Amino acid sequence: MYKISLITGDGIGPELSDSAVSVLETIHDKLDLKFGITKLSAGDKALEQTGKALPDDTVSAIKQSDACMKAPVGESAADVIVVLRRMLDLYANIRPAKSYPHMPALRDDIDMVIVRENTEDLYTGKEFSLGDSSVALRIISEQASKRIAKYAFETAKMRNDKKKVTCVHKSNVMRVTDGMFAKACTEVSKDYPDISFEQMYVDACAMNLIRQPQEFDVVVTTNLFGDILSDESSQVVGGLGMAPAANIGDNFALFEPVHGAAFDIAGQNIANPSSFLLSIKMMLDWLGTKNSDSKCFEVGQKLESTIFNLVKTGVKTKDIGGDKTTSEFTKQITDNL
Amino acid sequence: MYKISLITGDGIGPELSDSAVSVLETIHDKLDLKFGITKLSAGDKALEQTGKALPDDTVSAIKQSDACMKAPVGESAADVIVVLRRMLDLYANIRPAKSYPHMPALRDDIDMVIVRENTEDLYTGKEFSLGDSSVALRIISEQASKRIAKYAFETAKMRNDKKKVTCVHKSNVMRVTDGMFAKACTEVSKDYPDISFEQMYVDACAMNLIRQPQEFDVVVTTNLFGDILSDESSQVVGGLGMAPAANIGDNFALFEPVHGAAFDIAGQNIANPSSFLLSIKMMLDWLGTKNSDSKCFEVGQKLESTIFNLVKTGVKTKDIGGDKTTSEFTKQITDNL
Ligand SMILES: CC(C)[C@H](C(=O)O)[C@@H](O)C(=O)O
Ligand SMILES: CC(C)[C@H](C(=O)O)[C@@H](O)C(=O)O
Repeated sequence: MYKISLITGDGIGPELSDSAVSVLETIHDKLDLKFGITKLSAGDKALEQTGKALPDDTVSAIKQSDACMKAPVGESAADVIVVLRRMLDLYANIRPAKSYPHMPALRDDIDMVIVRENTEDLYTGKEFSLGDSSVALRIISEQASKRIAKYAFETAKMRNDKKKVTCVHKSNVMRVTDGMFAKACTEVSKDYPDISFEQMYVDACAMNLIRQPQEFDVVVTTNLFGDILSDESSQVVGGLGMAPAANIGDNFALFEPVHGAAFDIAGQNIANPSSFLLSIKMMLDWLGTKNSDSKCFEVGQKLESTIFNLVKTGVKTKDIGGDKTTSEFTKQITDNL
Repeated sequence: MYKISLITGDGIGPELSDSAVSVLETIHDKLDLKFGITKLSAGDKALEQTGKALPDDTVSAIKQSDACMKAPVGESAADVIVVLRRMLDLYANIRPAKSYPHMPALRDDIDMVIVRENTEDLYTGKEFSLGDSSVALRIISEQASKRIAKYAFETAKMRNDKKKVTCVHKSNVMRVTDGMFAKACTEVSKDYPDISFEQMYVDACAMNLIRQPQEFDVVVTTNLFGDILSDESSQVVGGLGMAPAANIGDNFALFEPVHGAAFDIAGQNIANPSSFLLSIKMMLDWLGTKNSDSKCFEVGQKLESTIFNLVKTGVKTKDIGGDKTTSEFTKQITDNL
């Protein structure tokens, strides 16, 4: 049995969490892959109720689980997710972007993944105000850069795809920090002679994601650029409705949708749970690898194809042109699993 | 007579410069707006020949001119343009993105402008290596933030458009520096009650530029985000072929295309000079305002409409689906002026 900790989140978070629980329970009952789920609070509501966006008992429960699922969190998101990423050393943020049938992608042949360094850059919270001026430290280390580069090349190796890693940076302006990042990636690339390696400035990348997204395979980049480029690439393949993310460390991982808490549609039972459910698929793959459990891969595959078959046949939520509610769409999935 | 300094650049730079000179000379001869042009060297070639990407006599010639035109520069671009922006305090980088007929824009109703702070952020070159780690200082000041905010609101006031300013930042992560930027913009917004003001995180903006670009009017942002988002928005309206930029200070201004030196097509007489020629139009508007010279506006208008009428009737360069060479396209413009 896998112990899953589940942060139920704010806004549409609780609805997506209900959907995820129902899918995990169905897998448990019908497909004989066993889960124990612990619901946890973190985010705006937790902050209001306990004074802490990330309560201590939430952290300890996460640490006792095999993997964490995190629904979107509101305004206090940074106090939850940035802290967890660093605390648990979840150094690789993996964000696939793929054109799926019947989604409004810019092209139908996009299949890429952004591998975002998840622990440093401008996300370490080292900022100071000096009267009329302020300064934030952008920290890049060789060790973290090499570690994420290695992850990117391993990812490229496993994909049946273009076998290409694109290192995105702005070393023409940030010669020292992005110089270090680019150099680390270049060095790691030498250990992977079968994978082609290219470098691209972040501004050019923002452009090329629209101009020729089909050319990308694996993109490796620093934290903040990864944040920006992954939101962009999600939209390039048709929006945040189908955009899962994995935060992966050497011993633990946390899965979440790329999108936020969407307060404007919260409580209406219309949110698209697909991004969150596809992050379950990412979790199953990760558990499968970690525990050499082929059952996890099988079930993950089945979950993904169930979602896409439904979307393909027009069974979908409002945001992507359908008429199904969150719970109706979830029920279709559990019925078909 | 207006004294124009012209950095002829690298790659396709010299070809674009020939095109620009021929347009300026035609304006001088046919439309009776007088120019004196001084060609200057800066960039990779200058570095090779003089040991300096930005030679001293180039700088002094620029300072003696009324405005500077800068063709794209190669690998040493940052040593030229970032230095000039800061040295001449050209604090506002203005990058319009507009859908034009017969250009492959994502939609045909996009009309926005990015107002990018041009003197600070991660562009001040303050970077240090500390063994295995490195750090870059991201510097944001209240004074520079207010100055660019004011420029953005003044821009919005003059546009016959949505009268909206969107302030783009990442203050949920960079609370101090982007907190300062957001606060400065919010304060300045109070002086402009007729212009609506909204804030957006940079990742959401990267997404919304594809999802609903028609909603934007004026975007104001910090230096590096402006770099990324303006390349993205150029592509949203169909590519860098028609993307001019103005670097504006209180007393001087420099005009350039958003695109780079494109070494892959250099010397072939196929580059699209439109971005550079449209930056002449931006220069004419700026000279017109500065010198209360209505002739400049008239001529600028004429130049812009000449370019668009040609493109509309299929007279265009290869990059946007035409068959004209750089010089053929330029000749069509000068014939029609
Ligand atoms: C909520 C925010 C701190 C976070 C980030 O910037 O990493 C989010 O945008 C994301 O991409 O997961
Ligand atoms: C060449 C480079 C330093 C420059 C920048 O980043 O500002 C360019 O990309 C631009 O946008 O003008």
